[in-house]
This record gives sequence, structure tokens and C-alpha cells, in this order.
Amino acid sequence: MPNPTAAMLTIGDEILSGRTRDANMPHLALALGEKGISLCEARVVPDVAEEIVAAINALRSRYDHVFTSGGIGPTHDDITADCVAAAFGVAIDVRADARAILATNYENPERNLNAARLRMARIPEGAELIDNPVSKAPGFSIGNVHVMAGVPAVFVAMVAGLLPKLTGGKPLLSETVQVLRGEGLIAGPLGIVAAAHPEVSIGSYPFNRDGVFGANLVARSDDAGALALAAAALRALKAELEG
Amino acid sequence: MPNPTAAMLTIGDEILSGRTRDANMPHLALALGEKGISLCEARVVPDVAEEIVAAINALRSRYDHVFTSGGIGPTHDDITADCVAAAFGVAIDVRADARAILATNYENPERNLNAARLRMARIPEGAELIDNPVSKAPGFSIGNVHVMAGVPAVFVAMVAGLLPKLTGGKPLLSETVQVLRGEGLIAGPLGIVAAAHPEVSIGSYPFNRDGVFGANLVARSDDAGALALAAAALRALKAELEG
Repeated sequence: MPNPTAAMLTIGDEILSGRTRDANMPHLALALGEKGISLCEARVVPDVAEEIVAAINALRSRYDHVFTSGGIGPTHDDITADCVAAAFGVAIDVRADARAILATNYENPERNLNAARLRMARIPEGAELIDNPVSKAPGFSIGNVHVMAGVPAVFVAMVAGLLPKLTGGKPLLSETVQVLRGEGLIAGPLGIVAAAHPEVSIGSYPFNRDGVFGANLVARSDDAGALALAAAALRALKAELEG
Repeated sequence: MPNPTAAMLTIGDEILSGRTRDANMPHLALALGEKGISLCEARVVPDVAEEIVAAINALRSRYDHVFTSGGIGPTHDDITADCVAAAFGVAIDVRADARAILATNYENPERNLNAARLRMARIPEGAELIDNPVSKAPGFSIGNVHVMAGVPAVFVAMVAGLLPKLTGGKPLLSETVQVLRGEGLIAGPLGIVAAAHPEVSIGSYPFNRDGVFGANLVARSDDAGALALAAAALRALKAELEG
């Protein structure tokens, strides 16, 4: 059976402005690879409701899982939960269990759970909460969509709590062989190796360090035996080219 | 007149595996902001032809510009140029001017311009070349799609050559006000500021540094006067909350 598929949706003008680099996508990508869930696409959309709703619906109909990051805080630009409810066509309101979790942050919840903070307890109908051990305000899963925070420490903690509950597949394994030759010399023999190992994804990532041309040849597969054969072929290619 | 819109399409299993972080997206985002072109969406797709073609067509029909990164080298996994040709329904072949540019890399082009390297001279019909001062192999623009390399040094150089040729708008300006209070306290008054300045995009980006809660409040606009008013309101909010 093939591995489950996934997409990531990052929500936020902050990422699209270039001011902040998205650290959550590479983190999720690596975690999903270990879990045996294939990250097939990633998108970044702005804090605009129609864009978020359209992206959620496009991605959830196509992949087994959608993981979102961003837009679930207390401020006016945090509109992800409402957009997810709209995408699923369900109601959204403050939920007692989410409110109770937020209340544990305060000695005097009646006074401190103001309207803004209570926004973080608004959960679409039918969703299941995702634990937030860092700052309490929960994420949630509804259908195949998993809604998490944008703050990296919180995102990482939510992913750690969520992934053990999902059904994975075979972990993605990889081997890297570095060849100190230009890609133009590598490409011919590499194409032959790639064609001979169709069940292994082989990529070439060139670099130029202090004037030395080279490429990292990365073989990826969830089949350890096939990967070992492809990696051996890449090492032979390296020996031939560098020898 | 509103600023031109843009999307970025990053092509590569390497990014989706989490092994490499995409540095090109934040670079392009900042450069477009200065140019007055609004980056409205970013996508990452794998080295799979149908996915690349579908993403190019979806994005080019929707935005004024599409900038792609990755997949234009000499190896078997470099399929972007062919996918762009397929998306536009035009032919692709080795082009004399692109071949001549590649030839300048070698003392003996007849011997060194092997089949793999010549792949980098394959240009879709009707495209205009994008200069690559780093490693010669050109990118290209066809219609509103600008095809550039994934290697960051080359991508940066291509963007620097390309952007002056595009029509920009008003540069995106921003001001940041840091407030050392939790977002739960900031959110209420911030919502009022945001509602009072609808022509300015105001975002709140929380952090927790050594146990101190705070948020960067970022106001963005291409209207300097409106931005100044919003920034003044944010500074007043900071004084009120921290005072």
C-alpha cells in the first residue's frame, strides 16, 4: 500500500512578505518523512479568508492529510479557525473544554479570559483538540485537516503530539553521495543510474564551494533494499568520475 | 492602480523532503516588496511533470507574474523547462543563443558541450532569456512566467537581472513596533487600531524570549502617509500597554 499523502498550508502575510522564514514546513517535512507520510505539496497564502478557505478545500479533497500553520492566536488577523469552519460548512463557537484549558493559564480566569483570549477557544463543530504543552491554546483536527500554531515552538510541540495518533506508512529513507565534479559531467551516468532504479527517487543538488564544483546525489525510497542498491550505484559513479 | 500581483513556484523534492530550506522564496518576497509587486501565494511541488504543469497553469492564469525556482540544470530530474513548454503548449528545443552562452564556459565547446549540458540550452519557443552571470546557463521568461535556477546564488543573480525589466508599483513599506506584553492583552486594542486603519495591513507576531512574552506588531502599506498614521497608533498602543 502506498504511503498516505499530505499537504502543508502556511497561513500568513508575514511569510509572504519575506520578513520571516517559514521554519515549520521543513520541520513538518522531516517529521512526516520519518512517519511514512508523503508531503506532496506546500502552499503559503495570505491572511485573507477566501484564499484560506479555497486552499483548505483544494488540498483536503486531494490529499490524505492537510497540516496548517498560523493564524490561531487571539488577534484580529487570526482567522484560520473561522476559515476552516467555513471550508467544512460547520458552526464555530467557544467550546467548554478548550475554554477550560485556557483557564489553567490564569489564577483568575474570570478576569483574565478576556474576549481576545476566548477567541482561542473557538473550535469548529466536530473537531478534536490538539494539545499545546507550550502555551495551552489548543490546535484542532477536523476531518483530515490539522490546524496548528505558527509560532515554531508551539508548532513543533503540536506536531509531536499529533503524529503518533495518525496512521503512517514506511519511513522515507535516504542516502547522500557527494561527487566533486560539475553536474554537466555527472548528468549522463546519473541518468542511467536513475533509469535503472525507478523505485528510488534520485535527485542531484549542485553546489560551488570555494570554486569547487560538486553535487549531492540524494537517493530516497521507503524500500531499504532498493535504496541500498541505488546508493551502491551512486558510490560506483562517484568512484568512476573522481577516480 | 493596484500593484501587480505575483506567485512563486518552487520545484523540487529536495524542499518537500525538508532536507533543504527554501531560501529563494524569502529573497524573492523581499525583492518584490521593494519593487512594488505583491507576492500573493507561494507553492512547492515535487519533480513530477503533471504537478509542475498544473501549478504553472493555475498560477499564471491568476497572477500578473509567476516566478519559478529549480529544475533547470543538466540532470534527469531537471524537467522544469519541458513542463513550462507543455503548460504553454509550445515546442522546446536547443536554441542557438542559449547554446552560444553555454559555450563560453569552455575552451573546447565541441568536446565539452555534452548532451547533458546542452539540455540547459533547451528553451521553449517564444521565450526570452534571463541572464545568469554566475554559471552561464540562462533562465527564461515566457508570457508572465519567469523560470529561474534553484541554486540560491544563481537565483539571486537572475532576480537582480530580471526585476528591473518588469513594471513595478509602489514599494511595500513597513514599520514594526515591539510590545512586551502577551498577545491576549494586545489583541483588544490592536483590533481597534487595525479597524481604524483599513488601508494598512497590521499583523501581530508573538514571541517568548527567556520567559518574556511579547509581539512584533507589523504595519504594511504602499501608502507612506497611511503607514505613518498607523505606526503612530501602534506606538501609542505600546505606551499605553507597557506604561
